[in-house]
Amino acid sequence: MIPHQPHLVLASESPRRQALMKLLQIDFEVIASQAVETAKSNESPTKLVKRLAKTKAQIVQNKRQTSWVIGADTIVVCNSEILGKPRSMTEAAAMLTKLSGQSHEVLTGICIQYLQNCDLTYVRTTVSFSTLTKKEIEDYLITGESLDKAGAYGIQGYGSRFITDIKGCYFNVMGLPVSHLYKRLKSTGFLTNY
Amino acid sequence: MIPHQPHLVLASESPRRQALMKLLQIDFEVIASQAVETAKSNESPTKLVKRLAKTKAQIVQNKRQTSWVIGADTIVVCNSEILGKPRSMTEAAAMLTKLSGQSHEVLTGICIQYLQNCDLTYVRTTVSFSTLTKKEIEDYLITGESLDKAGAYGIQGYGSRFITDIKGCYFNVMGLPVSHLYKRLKSTGFLTNY
Repeated sequence: MIPHQPHLVLASESPRRQALMKLLQIDFEVIASQAVETAKSNESPTKLVKRLAKTKAQIVQNKRQTSWVIGADTIVVCNSEILGKPRSMTEAAAMLTKLSGQSHEVLTGICIQYLQNCDLTYVRTTVSFSTLTKKEIEDYLITGESLDKAGAYGIQGYGSRFITDIKGCYFNVMGLPVSHLYKRLKSTGFLTNY
Repeated sequence: MIPHQPHLVLASESPRRQALMKLLQIDFEVIASQAVETAKSNESPTKLVKRLAKTKAQIVQNKRQTSWVIGADTIVVCNSEILGKPRSMTEAAAMLTKLSGQSHEVLTGICIQYLQNCDLTYVRTTVSFSTLTKKEIEDYLITGESLDKAGAYGIQGYGSRFITDIKGCYFNVMGLPVSHLYKRLKSTGFLTNY
């Protein structure tokens, strides 16, 4: 493990974010933030992911005041429309139909909250989808991957067959931009050994 | 599972390729090809990966003449130098030093061999590495991820912290371009249901 001093908390109950955090070989605790994830009217996608990442981190920091807390929020933006997690199979099918044959953006806001400091950034990845047939969408929905994921697809799972191209960080699409977070943990002084 | 007729063989003993093949939800058998993986003098990187992918597929097709066989070969090309799998920790450290702070290309040749037909293509992904310190390279080598991978890193593992950006298919960097293979299995007529 990388040596370090402060206690680190990931303010996310996403199993994917927790798995990605482990790639950094840093001990951390998980505390879900229970933040309300809705956009304000006229809020830009980048402002939204940064605000939600900060809110999640701050809610948890109120419970662990001496810890460093990481908050993250991920959304999909396709033709200026923000796609969150689908609430039903019908909504998932509609999202996949929108993504079919298009490029979209995945934005993740990352907040590192420590004492009175707040390091707030975001990462953008462009993802290109192949053109999907109705049968491909139907068969994909049966895999059950859609419902807990922004944009209704999992790039790391059966959704991979539809992703023709990405530009940027792959792990950002999964919910946590690993190399970006690693860099910020160094620049904020959490990781001091490199 | 996706319905299909012919028997499919993956001519690769790579556990990563086998895991990625499973994302296509097609039954397949694994038969290692034992092909010799060395470049000819003056052979271009794209010719090399296509030749090796074809050789692997053909060796296995000789044993399973009525099957469809997929062969694949992946290399890393950095500043015109081909990097295969490192043979020692020292060679792994030298490769990581070359990749540090640079962009490189990952090429995978894909051969689908069926009866007298050979569908031979390749996929290119550009990968950007952050600048690595000596300590980062040393600590990474200790993870043991380097030795069985072209270019001495695993994008899906602890190597992820060093990858700032990719352009193209992420899974290609892991050794099998999933969406490209899916498309070729449709265009060659193996998958007929979409």
